[in-house]
Amino acid sequence: MSALDAPLIVASNRGPVTFERAPDGVLVPRRGTGGLVTALIGALQEAEGLWVAAAMSPQDRELVATTAGRIDMHGFGASYRLRYLDIAPDVYAGYYNEISNGILWFVNHYLWDTPRAPSFDSSTDFAWDRYVEVNRAFAQALAEEAESFDTEPVFLIQDYQLCLVPRMLRELRPAALIAHFSHTSIAGNTYIRILPAKVREGVLRGMLGADVLGFHSEQWADNFISSARSLSGVRADLARSRVMAEGRQVAVRIHPISVEAGPMRETAATPELARLRKRLNQWRGDRRLILRVDRLELTKNIVRGFQAYELLLRRYPAWRGRVVFLAMLSPSRMDIPEYREYAEQCFAEATRINQELGERDWQPIEVRVKEDYLGALAAYGLYDVLFVNPVFDGMNLVAMEGPLLNRRGGVLVLSRNAGAYFRLGRYAIPVNPFDCTEMADALNTALEMPHDERTRRARGLSRLVLANPPERWVRSQLEDLERVRLRRTAQAS
Amino acid sequence: MSALDAPLIVASNRGPVTFERAPDGVLVPRRGTGGLVTALIGALQEAEGLWVAAAMSPQDRELVATTAGRIDMHGFGASYRLRYLDIAPDVYAGYYNEISNGILWFVNHYLWDTPRAPSFDSSTDFAWDRYVEVNRAFAQALAEEAESFDTEPVFLIQDYQLCLVPRMLRELRPAALIAHFSHTSIAGNTYIRILPAKVREGVLRGMLGADVLGFHSEQWADNFISSARSLSGVRADLARSRVMAEGRQVAVRIHPISVEAGPMRETAATPELARLRKRLNQWRGDRRLILRVDRLELTKNIVRGFQAYELLLRRYPAWRGRVVFLAMLSPSRMDIPEYREYAEQCFAEATRINQELGERDWQPIEVRVKEDYLGALAAYGLYDVLFVNPVFDGMNLVAMEGPLLNRRGGVLVLSRNAGAYFRLGRYAIPVNPFDCTEMADALNTALEMPHDERTRRARGLSRLVLANPPERWVRSQLEDLERVRLRRTAQAS
Repeated sequence: MSALDAPLIVASNRGPVTFERAPDGVLVPRRGTGGLVTALIGALQEAEGLWVAAAMSPQDRELVATTAGRIDMHGFGASYRLRYLDIAPDVYAGYYNEISNGILWFVNHYLWDTPRAPSFDSSTDFAWDRYVEVNRAFAQALAEEAESFDTEPVFLIQDYQLCLVPRMLRELRPAALIAHFSHTSIAGNTYIRILPAKVREGVLRGMLGADVLGFHSEQWADNFISSARSLSGVRADLARSRVMAEGRQVAVRIHPISVEAGPMRETAATPELARLRKRLNQWRGDRRLILRVDRLELTKNIVRGFQAYELLLRRYPAWRGRVVFLAMLSPSRMDIPEYREYAEQCFAEATRINQELGERDWQPIEVRVKEDYLGALAAYGLYDVLFVNPVFDGMNLVAMEGPLLNRRGGVLVLSRNAGAYFRLGRYAIPVNPFDCTEMADALNTALEMPHDERTRRARGLSRLVLANPPERWVRSQLEDLERVRLRRTAQAS
Repeated sequence: MSALDAPLIVASNRGPVTFERAPDGVLVPRRGTGGLVTALIGALQEAEGLWVAAAMSPQDRELVATTAGRIDMHGFGASYRLRYLDIAPDVYAGYYNEISNGILWFVNHYLWDTPRAPSFDSSTDFAWDRYVEVNRAFAQALAEEAESFDTEPVFLIQDYQLCLVPRMLRELRPAALIAHFSHTSIAGNTYIRILPAKVREGVLRGMLGADVLGFHSEQWADNFISSARSLSGVRADLARSRVMAEGRQVAVRIHPISVEAGPMRETAATPELARLRKRLNQWRGDRRLILRVDRLELTKNIVRGFQAYELLLRRYPAWRGRVVFLAMLSPSRMDIPEYREYAEQCFAEATRINQELGERDWQPIEVRVKEDYLGALAAYGLYDVLFVNPVFDGMNLVAMEGPLLNRRGGVLVLSRNAGAYFRLGRYAIPVNPFDCTEMADALNTALEMPHDERTRRARGLSRLVLANPPERWVRSQLEDLERVRLRRTAQAS
């Protein structure tokens, strides 16, 4: 059976829905947003598939307790099944906070202050055992669930939390068709050596258990290959973008993800969004709006973003009083000390700039900290400049969502170190996120850009995003797996 | 004329000698130490060559003022010439402190706390212009001096301060045979994108002006190639380790440098050194000696070194009172704020550990901060464990000097991220410099190692260092250039 028609099993740390209790006491699923969930749910519905994830909310856990983790979404107007894993909170903390977010996220985004951090010790070993344990639980659940299908399913494993699953699943089901996709940027072969040897080897060899490894941009794929080929027994064929490991061939593929325009545009067309836009428009008055929408995250480069804006106001003082910077920040990972500290720095920097440059009737920067998806959609409609300047970023979906909803020919100022740059760069104003002068000049260029040029670029951006719907991202991975299946069949005969 | 017999012109930021005023008022040269100077002076003497460098001491400048920078060392018992460039202090500060040490050193050793630093602005542009200016002065001096030879000389350009010289010199003398050698580790293709675009392109294309680029280890060479191939118009042939740029072929070669045993062993055999060793031996008593000898440098990982030692004492408390850690640190780059701050952290950490674990008659750590070459040579003779744990290091010569002089079968604990690891690793105890548990265990393993095994390893280390004298390092580069000459001659005919 073609991989394109086979049953599909998806695995990710967070599932496509979390359950909440409705006022009548019934548990109802709330669907996550974002291209990934949309694309994968679409594919699951077609394939009558199954999604394996960790239980998140107390209600998720409640359901797990009464259903052994198996939840049939057919009753919820959908046509796929869920398998939620109940992971003990302390185990989850080691796997998710300490290893996934505290170590793998940091290494893949080059976030460490290397003379001082990280400093690994036996607590790292302890947390690593938890990471292994959770990855094994996922692999075992995947292997179990595969038995519930009449035909052999294909597996799509998501992201850095589940790096070990491909290899563990391969051991349980040697003939399985397995794809793993990394949504983050990826450390190169020198920086990854910061990791303890067993973590580095574990992650790389774990991923190499897949048949196909997917990345959002060529640079992340190159970095993975350069790291993998330093392992003993692993060879890389850079020209063909594949790696030979333990007698198996692993294809390395680049499939940039995109966002889905339809539902977002529908939401943007509702009266509620119109009200939000109206209120925001009143607030900004006749000032130009520079917007950033981000998680409050070390990679997003919020402090330098404020400093670049400050430099804009100092170098081009004519903009004072005529522009306002709205930073919509959603709290993120506040259980990690580095994140709390960074959040404080962001607020302090905005406050300082407002004090130094603000005037009686003009505050240069407005920081809004909350989870506010609808507010972001409203703001997307209204920006003159969308400022997306991550230090490193696997893809960055804000750079795609904005142009889909913007109504003012808004200009995108985009970091060259975001995966999205390789897709959208030619219609954006590129910046080095470490170069405040370049960013300040880019903001000025964006603000001063003539109407025709703005329009041309804005159209280019939304055309590029629309041309690459999320279904294609899934489809490409399934096609990769189908090529693997055909090659294997040919070799076997 | 073969490149092996051609006149030789060396360029480096710091020259082989600095001048000092003797008590009789005469200026006398004081020769620098280290394998590089020794090897290059040896080669210069054979070739009747010339060394171009920046004037350093006030006396250097004085000589420059009276000699137009041309100093004939034949009068000093040597047979080569110097050309010292008089660079204005503010220009030198931009070139050396800001760009070379404040930016290029940081990028090549992955030292930045990326969410916060670096932050480039117009002062970076200003300093970069100084870097370009000094590199141009070097290139022009090299081209001028080449005219003083009857036959075409070959050029050996040294290190990250002079990255632009190869290309600038190529423009002045298109047919020149030019080698550039990098003594540092080298940033990979993602991390190097932290640099402003013009700095990154300038450095990479500047180096590509050479015929041969040398590095201390394969990993640094690979990192250079991966960065260079991302430039437009540049292609890399990884299998043959060469790069095609602007229609020219650039060979990338690995030539690990070594240290010269002879003079060091002669010094170690002097009565003064015997006195120093005796005093040190009295101080250590019957305790085991763990030694580190380093510049007080962000890359050297001094803080984590202390923490690993602390962990040794906590995990293996039997060592308390029976071992002492001597850290001989020479002040370095104290005009850069990050270095001052790091030095303070080093001292504070040692103080904390001494307070927490010290006893009435036992201080766990002794920190000695001064420029003390002879003291280091004495300590090399006496260590039981030499602890070399840099976060990243182009080569690391301490790991070579120690085993040449040690008399106690001392064990080398060595970072896997030092270039020296690729040469000496099999006789060292390897550590991940970010992993305090692994380092503590390695120190314990080293302290507990049986006599025969210690001796076997110590002999292996000194044999490896002796087998690769510094002359060979120069010779290999000249052979590379001779291959280039032969290829060019063949193509021309």
